[in-house]
Amino acid sequence: MAVAILKGTIVSAPALGKLDVAENGYLIAEDGRITGVFPVLPEQYAGAPVEDFGDALILQSFADLHLHAPQYPMLGMGMDLPLLDWLNAYAFPTEARFADPDYAREIYQGLARELVENGTTRVCMFSSLHRQATLILMEELEKAGVTGYVGKVNMDRNALPGVLEETTEDSMGETLRWLEECQDLRHIKPMLTPRFTPSCTDGLMAFLGRLAAERGLPVQSHLSENRAEMDWVRELHPDCRQYWETYAKYGMWNDRTVMAHCVWSDQRERQAMRDAGVTMVHCPDSNQNLCSGVAPVRAMLNEGGKVALGSDIAGGDHLCMFDVTAAALRASKARRVLDNWETDFLTVPEAWFLATSSGAAFFGEQPGFAPGNPLHAIVLDDSRLPQPHPLTPAERLERCVYLRQKDAVRAVWSAGRKVFSAE
Amino acid sequence: MAVAILKGTIVSAPALGKLDVAENGYLIAEDGRITGVFPVLPEQYAGAPVEDFGDALILQSFADLHLHAPQYPMLGMGMDLPLLDWLNAYAFPTEARFADPDYAREIYQGLARELVENGTTRVCMFSSLHRQATLILMEELEKAGVTGYVGKVNMDRNALPGVLEETTEDSMGETLRWLEECQDLRHIKPMLTPRFTPSCTDGLMAFLGRLAAERGLPVQSHLSENRAEMDWVRELHPDCRQYWETYAKYGMWNDRTVMAHCVWSDQRERQAMRDAGVTMVHCPDSNQNLCSGVAPVRAMLNEGGKVALGSDIAGGDHLCMFDVTAAALRASKARRVLDNWETDFLTVPEAWFLATSSGAAFFGEQPGFAPGNPLHAIVLDDSRLPQPHPLTPAERLERCVYLRQKDAVRAVWSAGRKVFSAE
Repeated sequence: MAVAILKGTIVSAPALGKLDVAENGYLIAEDGRITGVFPVLPEQYAGAPVEDFGDALILQSFADLHLHAPQYPMLGMGMDLPLLDWLNAYAFPTEARFADPDYAREIYQGLARELVENGTTRVCMFSSLHRQATLILMEELEKAGVTGYVGKVNMDRNALPGVLEETTEDSMGETLRWLEECQDLRHIKPMLTPRFTPSCTDGLMAFLGRLAAERGLPVQSHLSENRAEMDWVRELHPDCRQYWETYAKYGMWNDRTVMAHCVWSDQRERQAMRDAGVTMVHCPDSNQNLCSGVAPVRAMLNEGGKVALGSDIAGGDHLCMFDVTAAALRASKARRVLDNWETDFLTVPEAWFLATSSGAAFFGEQPGFAPGNPLHAIVLDDSRLPQPHPLTPAERLERCVYLRQKDAVRAVWSAGRKVFSAE
Repeated sequence: MAVAILKGTIVSAPALGKLDVAENGYLIAEDGRITGVFPVLPEQYAGAPVEDFGDALILQSFADLHLHAPQYPMLGMGMDLPLLDWLNAYAFPTEARFADPDYAREIYQGLARELVENGTTRVCMFSSLHRQATLILMEELEKAGVTGYVGKVNMDRNALPGVLEETTEDSMGETLRWLEECQDLRHIKPMLTPRFTPSCTDGLMAFLGRLAAERGLPVQSHLSENRAEMDWVRELHPDCRQYWETYAKYGMWNDRTVMAHCVWSDQRERQAMRDAGVTMVHCPDSNQNLCSGVAPVRAMLNEGGKVALGSDIAGGDHLCMFDVTAAALRASKARRVLDNWETDFLTVPEAWFLATSSGAAFFGEQPGFAPGNPLHAIVLDDSRLPQPHPLTPAERLERCVYLRQKDAVRAVWSAGRKVFSAE
């Protein structure tokens, strides 16, 4: 039996707003699964090799539940445009280049490497509509050690015909072929991905809903990101009272569904998510950059909804989830101002929970470094930062969330495998 | 005569919202002062050595008009607290350590180096109340190549007695002694710095106002950052209708005055600044982190006010002014949402103008790379970023604002001196 024993200052998020801390503690996994966090090394492991990281922080690695792989090359661009214009001027033309498998290979290798180096080890990710590039993306993520779900995007209307759009028939056929071709991958699995309601005909939506049911596939899409988008959806589906119903009516609305943004989801729409077990993905950078609004994260949490974080590159401008966590903190403060100081902002431990445990729940993990979880961890050396006073582990975590630290990640584990080491 | 000739893609901000671009252009300075930007090398310089940076961007370096040097060690900490609690729990104890000159030397060396490496070459900076540490700060900035103003902080009430507070007499005496001791520095000059109205007795304020007038010294302080702070000022100065009048009545209100924040400055207070030529310093990171509110930057600009940017470390969590520029963009979008989409957000060229030309104006510079300006420039190599399509210089600038780039700064000039080189 393979044992991994990591020693350091272990900080994890067992519940919203709570941090568990073990200074000079031992995080132990057997065959890739956590057996526990221990203040002293249990006798049964005496003599086993210990990776001693000294005073470094050992943290849960991140789950990024919404990002667009083919937009990686345009990170930080076109931010002066609103969502729908930005899609047409930047996102769609950039994605169109992934018809070229060589280009896809080069870009996706870089993306996968950067994810792992930044401690993101679980994803729900949009590819482009291209079957081949999607397979390449999945292969590169698998190779690099990222786990989770990737979706070939379905989009058969309202995009860029001839450049980035499928016929309904192609969309269905390519999806089936892609599902067949990707089944040997172990850590990266397929997820059905209607781009968003305006991009998919009713026929395609019905097909995807049936496919999800028949094969037990998870589904990801966008919901209530922007008011112009919502008006458009209302025109396209006059039979649906709210945006979410355009997914629900085709059977894509259950606890394996991930909906990005939900900026404008009102109490009724949020309740529909809570009742069905849908995961809401808060993408604070993107929402701010594209001026979409500020998602009511506090309300979502108070109501008992499932909320995770997404970098949403390239609407978001940061791939690194430390930055996204800081952005969630800032967004919650913007929301507080917007609500005339009546809403509490997120604390650092709360935002940290969303970036780690809450996202990991979608992959079946228990919160924190719970026994039984696959080992997903990041080792962070913050010793190069100045010490204004002796810092608590919680203060150190806060500082790591806010501050960019060059080369501070010393090692990353993903699903039990050590996938990055600075040595 | 010493000539510097820089060749590259030269981008500058000659007016709010406007960019001047010279691809393969020449930026030329004689004896440290810019003579111009030229599309081809003027004949008179034929044979002179050219520093050819290829396709790299040559940009104006930054002016950071508000930051607290002694808070540098606590960057990214205590952000869950509101302003006044944060001051007592974090800022004041951290500043108190600068009673120790050795500690000051170590921290300020690091700060000065990081400023220059990030292309910040002009500052208006708060030190702590310690005379000796303030001199050390000024020396370290001067050595590293940063120019501008530093203030020994005056604070004789409402701080931490015995830990971080002066008597009125000490405050006056130490200020006079500091002014004497710092007069040989060439690029870093003194600036009077009443911390903010609640920290200074009327007697101290009157003394500082007289000193400013007698010696022609500039003044910096805080204004209308937070509503609790404003209530407090109103209690302390029932004779003053608005916060700004507590500075104006002591003669610290003219075109050499810099006021940080102005989040809650209403039309009347903004007009008082515009009429007097006071520079308003927008500190978007800090205002968001401390939940102070969102400054009405668009209104300030529309009314013809002078607006510059400040990192405000350590209320702000980023020293790098690329990040602060991005934060200003995000804050302007938060303001747009707050104003129900009725206020235009800042465009990238507008925010860039605030971070460079607008701040530089306080130091007597003309906008952009105007002839006669001292050479302040940063050379940025963005060639390691992927190219989704052939990018315009404006698109490249946008991406540099949003994206952290490791080791992308190749060289920095400050007041005509090359103060950093990656080679």
